[in-house]
Amino acid sequence: MSTSSTSLQHAQALDEADTLAGKRDDFLLPPDTIYLNGNSLGPLTRRAQQRTLEVVESQWGEDLIASWNRHDWIDLPFTAAEKIAPLIGAAPNQVVCCDSVSINLLKLLACCLRMQSPRTRVLTQTDNFPTDLYVAQGLESLLGPARCELLAVAPDALPEALSEEVAVLLLTEINFRSAARFDMEELTALAHAQGVLVLWDLSHSAGVMPLEVDAWGIDFAVGCGYKYLNGGPGAPAFIYANCRHHGTMNSPVQGWMGHRDPFEFDTAYEKGAGMAQFLVGTPPILSLSALDAALDSFADVAVSDLHAKTMALGQLFAALMSQDEELSEFTLESNADAMLRGAHLAYSHPEAYSICRALNDAGIVVDFRSPNIVRFGFSPLYLRHVDVWRAIQSLRHLMREKTYLEDEFTRRLRVT
Amino acid sequence: MSTSSTSLQHAQALDEADTLAGKRDDFLLPPDTIYLNGNSLGPLTRRAQQRTLEVVESQWGEDLIASWNRHDWIDLPFTAAEKIAPLIGAAPNQVVCCDSVSINLLKLLACCLRMQSPRTRVLTQTDNFPTDLYVAQGLESLLGPARCELLAVAPDALPEALSEEVAVLLLTEINFRSAARFDMEELTALAHAQGVLVLWDLSHSAGVMPLEVDAWGIDFAVGCGYKYLNGGPGAPAFIYANCRHHGTMNSPVQGWMGHRDPFEFDTAYEKGAGMAQFLVGTPPILSLSALDAALDSFADVAVSDLHAKTMALGQLFAALMSQDEELSEFTLESNADAMLRGAHLAYSHPEAYSICRALNDAGIVVDFRSPNIVRFGFSPLYLRHVDVWRAIQSLRHLMREKTYLEDEFTRRLRVT
Repeated sequence: MSTSSTSLQHAQALDEADTLAGKRDDFLLPPDTIYLNGNSLGPLTRRAQQRTLEVVESQWGEDLIASWNRHDWIDLPFTAAEKIAPLIGAAPNQVVCCDSVSINLLKLLACCLRMQSPRTRVLTQTDNFPTDLYVAQGLESLLGPARCELLAVAPDALPEALSEEVAVLLLTEINFRSAARFDMEELTALAHAQGVLVLWDLSHSAGVMPLEVDAWGIDFAVGCGYKYLNGGPGAPAFIYANCRHHGTMNSPVQGWMGHRDPFEFDTAYEKGAGMAQFLVGTPPILSLSALDAALDSFADVAVSDLHAKTMALGQLFAALMSQDEELSEFTLESNADAMLRGAHLAYSHPEAYSICRALNDAGIVVDFRSPNIVRFGFSPLYLRHVDVWRAIQSLRHLMREKTYLEDEFTRRLRVT
Repeated sequence: MSTSSTSLQHAQALDEADTLAGKRDDFLLPPDTIYLNGNSLGPLTRRAQQRTLEVVESQWGEDLIASWNRHDWIDLPFTAAEKIAPLIGAAPNQVVCCDSVSINLLKLLACCLRMQSPRTRVLTQTDNFPTDLYVAQGLESLLGPARCELLAVAPDALPEALSEEVAVLLLTEINFRSAARFDMEELTALAHAQGVLVLWDLSHSAGVMPLEVDAWGIDFAVGCGYKYLNGGPGAPAFIYANCRHHGTMNSPVQGWMGHRDPFEFDTAYEKGAGMAQFLVGTPPILSLSALDAALDSFADVAVSDLHAKTMALGQLFAALMSQDEELSEFTLESNADAMLRGAHLAYSHPEAYSICRALNDAGIVVDFRSPNIVRFGFSPLYLRHVDVWRAIQSLRHLMREKTYLEDEFTRRLRVT
């Protein structure tokens, strides 16, 4: 019986030593599926299932409008947020859950431009997640070049592009395609040295990366509720604003839930204290409740353990990939150094699209990113090392038999 | 046995003649409750309950990321929207469900200002719903007075304030407090005569008022999913944009779901066709699914019947209120003419707050609006005329016994 680093036994031994192993019981995972797509949509937890049922049937169904107070719907944007705060290294009262990542980016970009006037430049990188670019392009078109000017440069040109003309540096820690990781602390320090505010998108970070937003002096951040936080499809996003800015920040995206006293129905807007000003419309309670419940799986978990496990899973996957001749047609597009990447691995292959479909048919859920990338995500709360091992066996089988080259019709017959 | 217009028998006779009576079976209403607050949060339908369960357990839980295609999550903003379209008199492809009313107002206001340049004025009325004012005030502060200037006047000063300097007229058809109703068709015509675009907030209208947005030539509208549409707490809102503007409108609130091809992950934003450009971030699928399911209750209903019934319920309530000496301390703050108001009635009373609480304790769910208003809402799909009659009996009892003057402690004892 082999105990080499490529053996099933080795993977099993890693699972036995895994301090997070018990967390898998929190999840309702479908049978015969290895879910390597938690970087896109986290799976259902028992808590989210039960909570949604309770919110729909008992709260909405029976207590109706009274639930805003009786079941604290009104505080839910903050209740959920305080569960996210420790995952990103934030002290209390600096996070709120609301809207989408895109809408939250708009609020914060506009905020930063106001705070930095007369500076007008928004600096980002060319391969930032598209929605971050679209939001900034939209704001640029709304305000005009004299008030907002977007500059996108290659990642290694960022330090040089930081200047006293830049109002805000807008970056995503982990690249959605390659998983390339920025050094947030270093770039933040470089930006601050030029008087530049930083706005970090933590969509591919929160729940897996060892974030220390307070310690690193991050100004603002946004993040996604439905990836590693497992909040459900389209779960509300979050905003972090460092408390040193609470006195001076003013979001121009104003709505009644962000008012100092929404139920006074004043005709003049007066922003709520602290993070409350980032609330706008009425929050989607069903979606927000599922997120809030899912976050309880993180309650007793150290972020360092989450990161250590996601790195271990990724390292095992990468090692198995590189040691196998049958998998040699795949090219690792992520950094080989686990410290320089996020929680997924990107491999390119000329037949990436077909391979993705065939893997999914075989119960190994991954996703494709144009033009030729397969993404394998390693979310640490529910994945086992044996899942990684088994995924590789399926992939080997697929590549050996070339079943991914079958046409759609034949494959469907096989699945049926 | 009395059959006068104030008798229970009269109310029962009205229920027997009610062609919408069967719709009540669609709803899961708590026992011993008369829910006169559907103007604030519509109740749970069987369809929304079943659908939420299915979306959570089977779609998210079992099919995971594949649900975006397998269960058409990706089309849900349009699927739900096409169920709203006939309720507001819109032909297909002019409505989309997304974000909140407030965020949607921001998109459309910014759109209108662009389309109307060099006009800069946003005209509204002083008692518009606060969030509508806050959104406009926020945009004014962002763009500056040279690009956006908010002018709020009294309702009867609106015709005179319409001029060639006004870019857009921003109004809510039904006032949230008094239920006062604007003549949308007339004001739209007056606005158009001055080259002014109209943006109507239909939050207190959709699902109850006889709207004809296409026929009236409305330019843009927004509306709420969680009031008369019964979509659930914080359900996504909707946007209507008349197809004649689809070629020229450009929302500056840009995100990846509004891109022509979101999954190409282009770095440059190219807006999607038609209503798609108003999508921004990933939609909250749990909340959106509940709305989509709830809307099926309207599938075979004529808007004229909805309006006729809500007027009949309101008329019955007003008649019973006015014919009863014990209720003479209440002052009707809504228009006595049912055609000049929406689907709720506002009454003022010096003890309005305490009366609201006592009514709610007695199972008659109403709400309070500062400083002295009780709102009674008459949502037509589940309310019966006998509910109105019984609500009045409870209110009479309350006023006769003056139980609403009990302090909080005593009342709680009684409830327990």
